[in-house]
Amino acid sequence: MVFDSETMKGTVDMLATSDHSSVVSITLFVTLLCACIVIGHLLEENRWMNESITALIIGVGTGVVILLISQGKSSHLLVFSEDLFFIYLLPPIIFNAGFQVKKKQFFRNFMTIMMFGAFGTMISFTIISLGAIVFFGKMDVGLAIGDYLAIGAIFAATDSVCTLQVLNQDETPLLYSLVFGEGVVNDATSVVLFNAVQNFDLSHISTAVAFQLIGNFFYLFISSTVLGVVTGLLSAYVIKTLYFGRHSTDREVAIMMLMAYLSYILAELFSLSGILTVFFCGIVMSHYTWHNVTENPRITTKHTFATLSFVAEIFIFLYVGMDALDIEKWRVASNSPKTSVAVSATLLGLVMAGRAAFVFPLSFLSNLTKKAQHEKIGLKQQVTIWWAGLMRGAVSMALAYNQFTKGGHTQERGSAIMITSTITVVLFSTVVFGLMTKPLVRFLMPPHSLLRMISTDSLTPKSFAVPLLGESLDSEADLFLGNGITSESREIIRPNSLRMLLRTPTRTVHYYWRKFDNAFMRPVFGGRGFVPFVPGSPTEQSVHNNWPEEPKQ
Amino acid sequence: MVFDSETMKGTVDMLATSDHSSVVSITLFVTLLCACIVIGHLLEENRWMNESITALIIGVGTGVVILLISQGKSSHLLVFSEDLFFIYLLPPIIFNAGFQVKKKQFFRNFMTIMMFGAFGTMISFTIISLGAIVFFGKMDVGLAIGDYLAIGAIFAATDSVCTLQVLNQDETPLLYSLVFGEGVVNDATSVVLFNAVQNFDLSHISTAVAFQLIGNFFYLFISSTVLGVVTGLLSAYVIKTLYFGRHSTDREVAIMMLMAYLSYILAELFSLSGILTVFFCGIVMSHYTWHNVTENPRITTKHTFATLSFVAEIFIFLYVGMDALDIEKWRVASNSPKTSVAVSATLLGLVMAGRAAFVFPLSFLSNLTKKAQHEKIGLKQQVTIWWAGLMRGAVSMALAYNQFTKGGHTQERGSAIMITSTITVVLFSTVVFGLMTKPLVRFLMPPHSLLRMISTDSLTPKSFAVPLLGESLDSEADLFLGNGITSESREIIRPNSLRMLLRTPTRTVHYYWRKFDNAFMRPVFGGRGFVPFVPGSPTEQSVHNNWPEEPKQ
Repeated sequence: MVFDSETMKGTVDMLATSDHSSVVSITLFVTLLCACIVIGHLLEENRWMNESITALIIGVGTGVVILLISQGKSSHLLVFSEDLFFIYLLPPIIFNAGFQVKKKQFFRNFMTIMMFGAFGTMISFTIISLGAIVFFGKMDVGLAIGDYLAIGAIFAATDSVCTLQVLNQDETPLLYSLVFGEGVVNDATSVVLFNAVQNFDLSHISTAVAFQLIGNFFYLFISSTVLGVVTGLLSAYVIKTLYFGRHSTDREVAIMMLMAYLSYILAELFSLSGILTVFFCGIVMSHYTWHNVTENPRITTKHTFATLSFVAEIFIFLYVGMDALDIEKWRVASNSPKTSVAVSATLLGLVMAGRAAFVFPLSFLSNLTKKAQHEKIGLKQQVTIWWAGLMRGAVSMALAYNQFTKGGHTQERGSAIMITSTITVVLFSTVVFGLMTKPLVRFLMPPHSLLRMISTDSLTPKSFAVPLLGESLDSEADLFLGNGITSESREIIRPNSLRMLLRTPTRTVHYYWRKFDNAFMRPVFGGRGFVPFVPGSPTEQSVHNNWPEEPKQ
Repeated sequence: MVFDSETMKGTVDMLATSDHSSVVSITLFVTLLCACIVIGHLLEENRWMNESITALIIGVGTGVVILLISQGKSSHLLVFSEDLFFIYLLPPIIFNAGFQVKKKQFFRNFMTIMMFGAFGTMISFTIISLGAIVFFGKMDVGLAIGDYLAIGAIFAATDSVCTLQVLNQDETPLLYSLVFGEGVVNDATSVVLFNAVQNFDLSHISTAVAFQLIGNFFYLFISSTVLGVVTGLLSAYVIKTLYFGRHSTDREVAIMMLMAYLSYILAELFSLSGILTVFFCGIVMSHYTWHNVTENPRITTKHTFATLSFVAEIFIFLYVGMDALDIEKWRVASNSPKTSVAVSATLLGLVMAGRAAFVFPLSFLSNLTKKAQHEKIGLKQQVTIWWAGLMRGAVSMALAYNQFTKGGHTQERGSAIMITSTITVVLFSTVVFGLMTKPLVRFLMPPHSLLRMISTDSLTPKSFAVPLLGESLDSEADLFLGNGITSESREIIRPNSLRMLLRTPTRTVHYYWRKFDNAFMRPVFGGRGFVPFVPGSPTEQSVHNNWPEEPKQ
């Protein structure tokens, strides 16, 4: 996601007006962040609200106050900056998601997630683009063909930040991993599509161009993933080899944070998808690096990553809320209020239709590949997946600003309408759809059915503890594996290779992965049970076997 | 420290050149930070090196490489930005210093610290300014009277960041608290002097102006301290009242971080000394707020603050190292190489003379007030204090850029010479003086005499555990108080008020402070022993008495 230099102006404008006003806006933001956290805490028990909606409402409220105080000319203090968003706020959120994600669920549903994220987004993109061409053409909005395709890419991007807020990993693990995983892949897809729309010669759409697009997508996906995995492994190796813990907790924490960020910024440097990279870096770090550090850095990194992500999320929603009142665009767009309303409504409709057009068919296809009843995606779950992915957020805003403004400013009527409509769709979908998601999830899936998979292990990020035997997730094998004892210490019934692979491919792949992991990866990169036990580390809840230093197995 | 809007250009230049180049420079910085940490770790045992010198050398090396690659025109990528320094890098360092400082030592030496920091800096300022007027006038550098006074203020600022690196709090607690405490106060003094030089009408220096200066200093000192204390208490009250721990660790950590930063940025907003504010906020937070959160946030905040401070320090030295090669100023200054060298040497000499002129006389005065031999500052210690405060760092650089450049650029000969001389003094004093400090401390004070006060409590920041009885620091009373049991639970011999106050003022004040703290402050704001015991919190090493929830005494 390397955007052209024009897009930097937003940051510059925000920072440059003057030193004093930048201090004022930082003070304002920090105060509002504190307010959001306190209010979010007080509203914790409320079944409708969540932190993002609170932040959005406070943001809009503050925007109104600023507008009133400055008598309608304050938009410059808080121009939306893509750079701030993509370079500073998004990485901690996605990294933390990878760091805390239940890897078991994520890899079990890997194929479904890929299907939703890649093919689904393309379907959604096609429908929204076609719809835009048909409807907006009639409305005389005054956009070119490239703009219509860009609209498709912009509104195909599900807001994974918002999804993280409304779905609960512990309550609905399957849905969470599907919707969130889809969100991560989906982001890569939209960015590829968006760049393609901006770069390709659209007057000659041919099969070659289509193949180029698909090739580009796979290149992006694979190279981003590899970069994330390599950076994560490097961090594990560095920390294991030097074993900083003997000297300094702070060095371990600093190295983990810096290398996580390095993976993202390297991906940006190579024009890859930083989101995919940092997500996989998070997964690798929680599997290897996290186990190589001593006890205090474990607690510290776990909570620090979560806190940074939490603050960045609130910051984004505050920011979007405030920016929604950027008076310049509204003034231009308000000359044709009917068109604006019609465009916003049409976009909302297209987003809903585009998502429905892939969630239900692809769920059906996914169900065909599953044997066990409990692994299938039921109709109620399909509705929830459809619903939870309707929210559009900061990613859509950033792409829309990139397409329709020059450095945060626009005077053209068509562009102004698109910006205001994007803001309307983002606000409406986040607030209205967001408000209704919690009750909807509760209505469709009552709590008693949700409770069976709540994790009791609140400290240790789950490692690859997929049960090797039987179907039950709560099997003793799982619990046993979850307690820090590697599978070598137990007798394992080998799966009957080929037949097993055909029947339960994911599990067989997992079995061989685990063998490979224990034989080659862990001795080199560390991980659970492969670092020396530190006596007296007080919060280590698992059973330690006093591993000898660096066992070679 | 609110500078005029011109100074923003540095940030803008750095960020604005283009999106891609900002990604490149971020990647470069993050990679170099990782390299510094790893190399710093490998050089841990080396008695000469420390992390700041490593970072400075790596920074200069990278600067050379960039210069060679760009064939001598790369200075714009990394223009020194005061804003980045004062708004983002300095606050975590100073906050952490306040958070981890041994309060006992700090408050015991409070009067000496104030004398050194305020009067000492003024003496130093006078000598450097007068010296500059005398010597630079002869050299025909071409500066105005205001510039000479500014030079006095710039070079009166001891680099507290560098001091933190070369002195060890556990090995030399008295020296550390004196030199570091002086550095914090000293910074406020230099900034007041610097602003005074820029704002006052210097052609009419009168007694009135001098009194105004002194009044300004006291106003700044007191209001900054009060702001820091109030923000810290507010954070303690908010966390204690809402008791976030029941719901979310991340909220507690986020509130602590945000409110700490808020104190700094509020001080900047009101044109106070953010450094003093955030330092006292750190002290209050470690005394109250830190005890109000649950176990995991305690570990997390302690290590996160330390890590952020650590990374910010390395970042600053890298940055200064790279910026040292800013080719533009060197080109202008190189037309008169002899003058440049003479100016740098003169400045170094003046810095040393200015510091000697207050350290030895003020130490003598301080010793007159102390009765006990071990509380006096010996000659060897005086030499160390003098030496450890000779380093000039990023604060001097930032002030020099503010005075002698417009947005990081200069073409005037006199200004260019001053900038290059500042860089020379900073590099020379940090590297040469810095390299020699560790050996010097070891030579003047051999390790066996240093060991007696090494703290064994590595987790809990020391609280106000001044011994109430006897002279010995290692008395049982101290150990007992240090274990989390408030003084109420033991019988205390009341000091014989007035006589006691005259003989040992600090201790008597402390006794009444402690009474007040336990009777009024702790019940409201929490603190050690005044928050409910969380069963099973594994790393709590102190003896818990199972306090009832919110005891009212």
